[in-house]
Amino acid sequence: MSLLSRAAVIGGGVIGGGWVARFLLLGVDVTIYDPDPDAQRKIMQVLDNARQSLPGLYDQRLPNEGQLRFSATLADAVSSAQWISECVPEQLALKQKVFADVQQHCLPDALLASSTSGFKPSELQQGSAAPEQIIVAHPFNPVYLIPLVELVGHSASIARASDILETLGCYPLVVRKETDAHIADRLLEAVWREALWLVNDGIATTEEIDNAIVYGFGLRWAQMGLFETYRVAGGEAGMAHFIKQFGPALAWPWTKLMDVPELTDELVKKIAAQSDEHSSQYSIRELERIRDKNLVAIMRSLKWTNWRAGQLLNNMDQKLKQTPTGAGQLLQTINRVIPSSWTDYNGHMTDASYAEVFSFAGDAVMKLIGANQDYIDRGLSYFTVDVKISYIQECHQGDGVTVVTRISDGEGKKLGLEHALRNDKGELLATSVQLLLHVDLRARKTCMPEAPVRETLSRLARSHQTLAAPF
Amino acid sequence: MSLLSRAAVIGGGVIGGGWVARFLLLGVDVTIYDPDPDAQRKIMQVLDNARQSLPGLYDQRLPNEGQLRFSATLADAVSSAQWISECVPEQLALKQKVFADVQQHCLPDALLASSTSGFKPSELQQGSAAPEQIIVAHPFNPVYLIPLVELVGHSASIARASDILETLGCYPLVVRKETDAHIADRLLEAVWREALWLVNDGIATTEEIDNAIVYGFGLRWAQMGLFETYRVAGGEAGMAHFIKQFGPALAWPWTKLMDVPELTDELVKKIAAQSDEHSSQYSIRELERIRDKNLVAIMRSLKWTNWRAGQLLNNMDQKLKQTPTGAGQLLQTINRVIPSSWTDYNGHMTDASYAEVFSFAGDAVMKLIGANQDYIDRGLSYFTVDVKISYIQECHQGDGVTVVTRISDGEGKKLGLEHALRNDKGELLATSVQLLLHVDLRARKTCMPEAPVRETLSRLARSHQTLAAPF
Repeated sequence: MSLLSRAAVIGGGVIGGGWVARFLLLGVDVTIYDPDPDAQRKIMQVLDNARQSLPGLYDQRLPNEGQLRFSATLADAVSSAQWISECVPEQLALKQKVFADVQQHCLPDALLASSTSGFKPSELQQGSAAPEQIIVAHPFNPVYLIPLVELVGHSASIARASDILETLGCYPLVVRKETDAHIADRLLEAVWREALWLVNDGIATTEEIDNAIVYGFGLRWAQMGLFETYRVAGGEAGMAHFIKQFGPALAWPWTKLMDVPELTDELVKKIAAQSDEHSSQYSIRELERIRDKNLVAIMRSLKWTNWRAGQLLNNMDQKLKQTPTGAGQLLQTINRVIPSSWTDYNGHMTDASYAEVFSFAGDAVMKLIGANQDYIDRGLSYFTVDVKISYIQECHQGDGVTVVTRISDGEGKKLGLEHALRNDKGELLATSVQLLLHVDLRARKTCMPEAPVRETLSRLARSHQTLAAPF
Repeated sequence: MSLLSRAAVIGGGVIGGGWVARFLLLGVDVTIYDPDPDAQRKIMQVLDNARQSLPGLYDQRLPNEGQLRFSATLADAVSSAQWISECVPEQLALKQKVFADVQQHCLPDALLASSTSGFKPSELQQGSAAPEQIIVAHPFNPVYLIPLVELVGHSASIARASDILETLGCYPLVVRKETDAHIADRLLEAVWREALWLVNDGIATTEEIDNAIVYGFGLRWAQMGLFETYRVAGGEAGMAHFIKQFGPALAWPWTKLMDVPELTDELVKKIAAQSDEHSSQYSIRELERIRDKNLVAIMRSLKWTNWRAGQLLNNMDQKLKQTPTGAGQLLQTINRVIPSSWTDYNGHMTDASYAEVFSFAGDAVMKLIGANQDYIDRGLSYFTVDVKISYIQECHQGDGVTVVTRISDGEGKKLGLEHALRNDKGELLATSVQLLLHVDLRARKTCMPEAPVRETLSRLARSHQTLAAPF
């Protein structure tokens, strides 16, 4: 599904490892070059976190994982890659040297994408014979979950990069003019400076600042940004009115931004000690897992409203979806991985989530027979009347599962379904028998389906009559 | 449940209306004073949004709504209030005048809480004979959903305010030293200035800036703040190491913060036009509802991880919870409102969410018989084996519902339950029959419950034997 089949990653830190994980889990083969003997261990840790979280963002199965290979030389790593992510430390001369080396060995049409938070393409390209090949593709940690990637550089290269990133589930944001720190880090840097002053001046601790975010505007910003939030707050009078109200405050002494706080040893110690007090009851590994579970849960909650990051996930599901096989055989209605947010604190799928899986399976049958969104928008649908679920075996976060469905009744207003949920070992996890009735959504009463739906369903149901139940 | 029984709100704009909604829905009587003839209409709109969203944050029923009264005079509004929220426009002289008037008529021990984003208590208190009564309690829009309230002022008053706000579901953040714009708005102001520069310089549009937030760091900040996010990103080397890496960038020219952009008519027009292009397909009312649904979904998703805003909600649920009635009568296991995130785009509860309600009802029985978190932590629990749900009638976002449960089997390893879900009109919405078996979580096998659980359950079940099923 991805437009990319072979990627290389130079530098296997948190960001490099994150790229590796996103590529691999979306089916791209990856070679890595990092001379650090510890790189492999670190990357496998990132990959382990990604495997536990990323597949659960989607309600469809991702492609098979790509192949991972550690290269002994940079030349070997990049030689056949179509996309090369540079993730070395934030030193301009080092990055320029890496690009010079890469360009000696890479394909002439490979994209060379720097993960830099701050440098401009024109700086990275200095001395290069093929500067248009070098772009900025700036991701955000954790790279395998956060969709945003800022793209800066030559327009044709950026257009190609954007298409590729979309197939990897990313949200490419093309930056119109190159500028130091692109867009997001300009905003982050502003907050960081102000936060340092607050700590420095003893007005707030790191924990208090974090709490001002997570209990406050952070909840807003997961779904509407700065301007859209204020647009809503401004009400009917509109954005221009809001700015006039808010504007004068800009001239008030509400900020110490004009100055850069000096990072004295004392200030660094103060911050580190406060951060320890806030968070040291969790190890970094635990915090990573908590963060990833939260992000999966938040992003999945936005799928339900089909909004921003959630809409992005839903669009990807559409691309990943395989049409169930047709008449004369049972239908594979679900092919997916169990998300962390469907499990309890033991990673054990909750009983209500089994019901959710079977509900999705029923939805898949509805779509197959033509009772899709258009049909529902015309005021017709199926409502569930009766469900029986038998729980046979546990399943866990990250387990791949399928549901196979038999249409046991498809005459008139009825839609009878028999579902079997199995894991990838073929073990039966649960069964469900569902009865749905066709309804007129306006009258809130049962009624006959429209002819095309009725006929498709009836034909399918007849072809299932001679087949055994899937359990 | 709230420590407050009577509140007054002076000024019925977006913030005043938000306070009104939070007070009322948590059971507090509210009087409002606002000379604007349009205030009543505006407040009823905010209240309508709040009724659709706030009760769904909790898995327990909130207390009965308080009484709402519009006062013709400020004196009448404040005369018997224990808490008076000042929500008039951001002009210091106006606020000082309001407090002078309020102090003429209010109770001597009432708390006078300004919603100001910027002014310090010492400024608000100027000329007051009882300055310690006047504090800052700065909320965030939408006030009925976002938990954060920054508290600044006299320590004893702040301590009282903090206790009161906690019973209202807020997260009070005590600011150590009074300072212009408190904590959160210092950070917001910094981002706002930087964003204005980005728009002014043509580097990004308002939509691009918002997208850099909602697809990027906004997702992070809904659950971990600035420092905790960087702590995790820094990895095992710790916070001090991270700062050293990040530190030098502070001195780089990544920001134009040193200057204040001039809000020319041209810049204001540019921002308003870009904002229209981004968001004008939705009315402000629609955007409010989208925002509230997203916030409810995000905050509920954090309940599941029991993290920050989600933990706050779970703690509130604990306080709201009523123990089901005991032996000899059926159990009321659920008493709650249907959250927006349990419904489809028609506001119609999804079939999987019925399963979730019944699953919660089963959990309530488990807790009642002593199979609580401690018991589970000791390695014992009940697993669902079989569930049958009959769907009888639709229910909708915001509907109050109860589940009444009969224990049909409580001998040995078995826990058999019959549940009836009804709305507040007493109409039967659905029934469920559940069979659970007692398990050893380590062996993943069935086993007998421990004696206290076994005996409590058996006693309850016997007392239910002669009772009719709840449906």
